[in-house]
Amino acid sequence: MSGLRSGHSYSAAELSPEGDRVVLLDQRLLPHEERYLEFADAASVADAIRDMVVRGAPAIGIAAAYALAVEARRLGGAEWIEGMRAAGQRLLAARPTAVNLRWAVEHMSRDLAHTDADQLRARALAVHDDDVAACRAIGAHGAALLPDEGTVLTHCNAGALATGGFGTALGVVRAAIAAGKRLRVLACETRPWLQGARLTAWELARDGVPVELITDGMAAHYFGRGEIVAVVVGADRVARNGDVANKIGTYTHACVARAHDRPFYVAAPSSTLDPRTATGADIVIEERSGEEVTSFAGTRIAPIGVQGRHPAFDVTPAHLVTRLVTERGVVPGPEAARLM
Amino acid sequence: MSGLRSGHSYSAAELSPEGDRVVLLDQRLLPHEERYLEFADAASVADAIRDMVVRGAPAIGIAAAYALAVEARRLGGAEWIEGMRAAGQRLLAARPTAVNLRWAVEHMSRDLAHTDADQLRARALAVHDDDVAACRAIGAHGAALLPDEGTVLTHCNAGALATGGFGTALGVVRAAIAAGKRLRVLACETRPWLQGARLTAWELARDGVPVELITDGMAAHYFGRGEIVAVVVGADRVARNGDVANKIGTYTHACVARAHDRPFYVAAPSSTLDPRTATGADIVIEERSGEEVTSFAGTRIAPIGVQGRHPAFDVTPAHLVTRLVTERGVVPGPEAARLM
Repeated sequence: MSGLRSGHSYSAAELSPEGDRVVLLDQRLLPHEERYLEFADAASVADAIRDMVVRGAPAIGIAAAYALAVEARRLGGAEWIEGMRAAGQRLLAARPTAVNLRWAVEHMSRDLAHTDADQLRARALAVHDDDVAACRAIGAHGAALLPDEGTVLTHCNAGALATGGFGTALGVVRAAIAAGKRLRVLACETRPWLQGARLTAWELARDGVPVELITDGMAAHYFGRGEIVAVVVGADRVARNGDVANKIGTYTHACVARAHDRPFYVAAPSSTLDPRTATGADIVIEERSGEEVTSFAGTRIAPIGVQGRHPAFDVTPAHLVTRLVTERGVVPGPEAARLM
Repeated sequence: MSGLRSGHSYSAAELSPEGDRVVLLDQRLLPHEERYLEFADAASVADAIRDMVVRGAPAIGIAAAYALAVEARRLGGAEWIEGMRAAGQRLLAARPTAVNLRWAVEHMSRDLAHTDADQLRARALAVHDDDVAACRAIGAHGAALLPDEGTVLTHCNAGALATGGFGTALGVVRAAIAAGKRLRVLACETRPWLQGARLTAWELARDGVPVELITDGMAAHYFGRGEIVAVVVGADRVARNGDVANKIGTYTHACVARAHDRPFYVAAPSSTLDPRTATGADIVIEERSGEEVTSFAGTRIAPIGVQGRHPAFDVTPAHLVTRLVTERGVVPGPEAARLM
């Protein structure tokens, strides 16, 4: 692919040049295969979001915006606004935790009576461009927090593959390296879905950023040895009080960082901040199949009859968030509301 | 198998009735297949220890004791003592971190000039019986620390499969349940080798102990929800100051337990206590192949060119160890030397 809005040679989500297809990189196949799938209506994009063809809170929002742009073009006649509302509902139901999905659907559904398909196409493209611009601003803000050299720990994938491009947490690393800092990344593999091993390692290696892979439980070992200068992660939703929902395993790293007096940074666009959610306790945590835990890469690893548990996200309390980094600026976690 | 010294219907390590074979359960094949391998000399047992046919600090010690008993019977002539010394060295080199291996080799090598093969066989069987007795005593001591009901978190496998039988950490759980406590186990899968998913889940399910599987990074989530009443783990070596080497990932759980003000218990036989190691900094941490992190069951999960790191153990500082539980009694972690 070329001429991508992501700014990379790959992209999580794009609109076809004709505006009639959503093009998603099938992240389930990475790092072994780079295959793009095309979707001609919102319902199939909703399925793709649920099935994790595309994941990452900002990327899901962009995919949903493109889905509604394609849907607007596809629908015709007097009923098109009702069709758009139904498509929006279907997209919202795909994954409950990330707030960017809701943000994107609401943004695309505004004032439909005075909007046509061409305008919605432009609006969706702006959602994408704005996200990339936000990531670059997040990168600039966050890079200033990092030392001139050292190893940054990250979890899951909050990179180009999770956003319109450039990334949030990995955008901070990219911006710091572009500014001349000598940083390395320790990527936690992020069981059960292995976003760290499959996606973060893939995109950082592709861009020439030094990256090594560890299992999620190794973090304390490297903190204890003084190897890690900071944790930088993304977010799926930030509550008004600054509590952060992010990929399961994040909260563990926050506890370990605090135990070693190292900073824990959360990087996210303001579309991830949710003033309508008071605290982390109000965030719906998606429960996925336990079979994703009792199996590994398609192979059963646990005895038959033993169940796995699989909360897809956890909530890190605001007091453990040293800084929340958005395109609007940087605040301590408990002061998140200042950016909302 | 029947009539096993382990006291279970399975056993990590046994001596054949004729005393000429070491019989090891191939733990690499669990939970899918229960296959026993026989070894006729010490060198092949050393290879099996290195290749993780048998693992778990006490079980490795027992396997080494049996290996030397078999070797004594196999060797003849004037050179047998030299042959035994060479076999002991080869066993010691198989894995560097667990101290029980050294303890067993030294115990079996004492006063060889006045010892014959029959006596060594009896000595090895006593090593096994003493370990099971120690596990039962550990269980009794540890069970008293647990509440009447709740969920216990454990990491790796410190169970019957890691010992002569009954287990250390899982022995505590077994003893508590036998005493009428209503306990459940959350088993952390323990990447990269998945001892939790493959071994702990297997032996607890086989014995009817309620067990569910989580990924290593989920621990903080369940602590945060108040679901976990205690962490109970084993140890591969306890230094004089109480620092604990155990399977990689253990230290992370200790940090998270402390952050939630929950107790962190280490259960181990006194053969795991090492007065000759002053602190955790003096413990050699075995570095295994990074490919065990970048691959799973022969399938590569990370992009080609990305390296994994694989310290096989970590060191939990004594101040995070609420109680150290041995067959000799229970002390706070920093007072470990009182049991040495």
